[in-house]
Amino acid sequence: MSMSDTITLSLDEAGELARKVLLKQGLAPDHAAAVARTMVAGERDGCASHGLYRLLVTANSVAKGVVVPDAEPVVSEPSPALVRVDGRGGFAQLPFERGLPLLVEKARKLGIAAMALNNVVHFAALWPEVETLAEQGLVAFACTPSHAWVAPEGGTVPVFGTNPIAFGWPRPEKPPFVFDFATSATARGEIELHRRAGKQTPEGWGYGPDGKPSTDPEAILAGAMRTFGGHKGSALAAMVELLAGPLIGDMTSIESIAADEGRMGSPIGGELIIAIDPAGFLGDAVAQHQRSAEAMFDAIEGQGARLPSVRRYVARAKSLVEGVRLPKPLYDDIHALLEGNEA
Amino acid sequence: MSMSDTITLSLDEAGELARKVLLKQGLAPDHAAAVARTMVAGERDGCASHGLYRLLVTANSVAKGVVVPDAEPVVSEPSPALVRVDGRGGFAQLPFERGLPLLVEKARKLGIAAMALNNVVHFAALWPEVETLAEQGLVAFACTPSHAWVAPEGGTVPVFGTNPIAFGWPRPEKPPFVFDFATSATARGEIELHRRAGKQTPEGWGYGPDGKPSTDPEAILAGAMRTFGGHKGSALAAMVELLAGPLIGDMTSIESIAADEGRMGSPIGGELIIAIDPAGFLGDAVAQHQRSAEAMFDAIEGQGARLPSVRRYVARAKSLVEGVRLPKPLYDDIHALLEGNEA
Repeated sequence: MSMSDTITLSLDEAGELARKVLLKQGLAPDHAAAVARTMVAGERDGCASHGLYRLLVTANSVAKGVVVPDAEPVVSEPSPALVRVDGRGGFAQLPFERGLPLLVEKARKLGIAAMALNNVVHFAALWPEVETLAEQGLVAFACTPSHAWVAPEGGTVPVFGTNPIAFGWPRPEKPPFVFDFATSATARGEIELHRRAGKQTPEGWGYGPDGKPSTDPEAILAGAMRTFGGHKGSALAAMVELLAGPLIGDMTSIESIAADEGRMGSPIGGELIIAIDPAGFLGDAVAQHQRSAEAMFDAIEGQGARLPSVRRYVARAKSLVEGVRLPKPLYDDIHALLEGNEA
Repeated sequence: MSMSDTITLSLDEAGELARKVLLKQGLAPDHAAAVARTMVAGERDGCASHGLYRLLVTANSVAKGVVVPDAEPVVSEPSPALVRVDGRGGFAQLPFERGLPLLVEKARKLGIAAMALNNVVHFAALWPEVETLAEQGLVAFACTPSHAWVAPEGGTVPVFGTNPIAFGWPRPEKPPFVFDFATSATARGEIELHRRAGKQTPEGWGYGPDGKPSTDPEAILAGAMRTFGGHKGSALAAMVELLAGPLIGDMTSIESIAADEGRMGSPIGGELIIAIDPAGFLGDAVAQHQRSAEAMFDAIEGQGARLPSVRRYVARAKSLVEGVRLPKPLYDDIHALLEGNEA
């Protein structure tokens, strides 16, 4: 696509556009602001699939009644080190923001704390959550199930969601060390892209509904995806189901896809976030031990290997100066949402 | 090997033998009892490489001065939800047992708690830790670095240890759901076995010291192993380094192998264990949500896929009835340790 086929927006302009569209979709102002922030963060960091494109996804979730667009989250403290935010069927971003101060306070006071988001619609990446905590000096872990699309290793029938795991580690005077990956072998969107392009997938991505290994994207989407890393990835996917499902009183991916009743909506369910304060174990020695971590990062980068998230941070630095560039057709689709009569 | 080449011991006899050997090696009685328990558990569960064979490994660690055989662990509470056990250079088993009651108490009272084992010599699997916690009704996670043997994805120089991750989930009226795996592509012992057998390894296990992919076990042992699951496994290996290293004030795998000074001893360093009480989030609804977890396990096993640890539990059931069977040469080597003059 040539330069003339893109529209450049400053981050403020992108945020303003996203908020306006989300308000038009019927989101309450706090929800619109919170959701817009993560969409702009995705666009800014070069993750277009989690950027403003997702305005089309939220439009669908609202139109099909998958999400409660003006749900008021309820924050509670089920135990001294635990925070629960009942999202009451709304998008996950606002519940996270509402629970965050209490999670941070508890982690600092007790050394470790955990927060459950319950009954939320989750369509975004998890790195915004762990990065936000790491920016406050905390070590963070987050995970969430999704819809049952992924077979356990040794089987061919979906049990797990794509079940991402994210981790954040604060670094002195640098953006945090952050990773966020699906425990499925590949993203579901990648299979979709192959389907739209009429291409076969590489070997090893999934099974058809007949339980046979397949490279036909249509068959895999109707059948089952695979986990990454064989039985180890499969074990991690099960851990995510348990931690962010039954442990916090929320749905497994099997239950979530059943509740969706074929609407093809974003997954509804829970998310677990754990925050640990390095000062809890280390007291005054945080800086000293952070140097050991930095030495490890240096040993990785010094041999030419990449730290996760570096690509995002490079894209971010560029976007902060140059703004973000949307393909013209996407920009037009987003603007059409402003002019529709759905709201 | 024919039946006549094995010696059968009851679990009590195996424990008695292990304790006697460990006492002879100079371990304090509490250490000998704790270490013997995990060795018998390994032998009982069919994990011969973590069974009584390890008496030869502990002998080496004692003889080379890698371990303090009579270290008295010190338990402290650096924060309200955190437990620290300073192992003072001893084996990890006794520090774990000494800190366990406080970790359990904190998890039950606060909902989540974490325990650091510091300055311990770790040569065993992690499943005994998470299984013990899960048997007490808690969800448990554990990890530990080791020696820098494993290259990050995209590099060929060792940074990480084999960095295992273990997880335990309590099941009603069944042994817990437990997994425990190295984040390296394969166990170091597997490469050793290929070396001894004079066989090439499969592709993808590691690099020679020249940084080129190799299937020569000798070259990989001198060069670098790979992580499992590409950049995802590599990210997890980094997480283990951070959580059970700098976060708890202990060594990274790079620091641990440097401290070993070529003695080829077991890794010294830290371990992080997190315990979560399901009742913390769920109150009276634990049994209800455990049923969702059981439905997921049924969906896995119902399609013929295996849950992790099932093989161990099958071996355990057999061992409880029939005892354990040691190869005669191993039995003789162990007995020789009783007759030596090292102590």
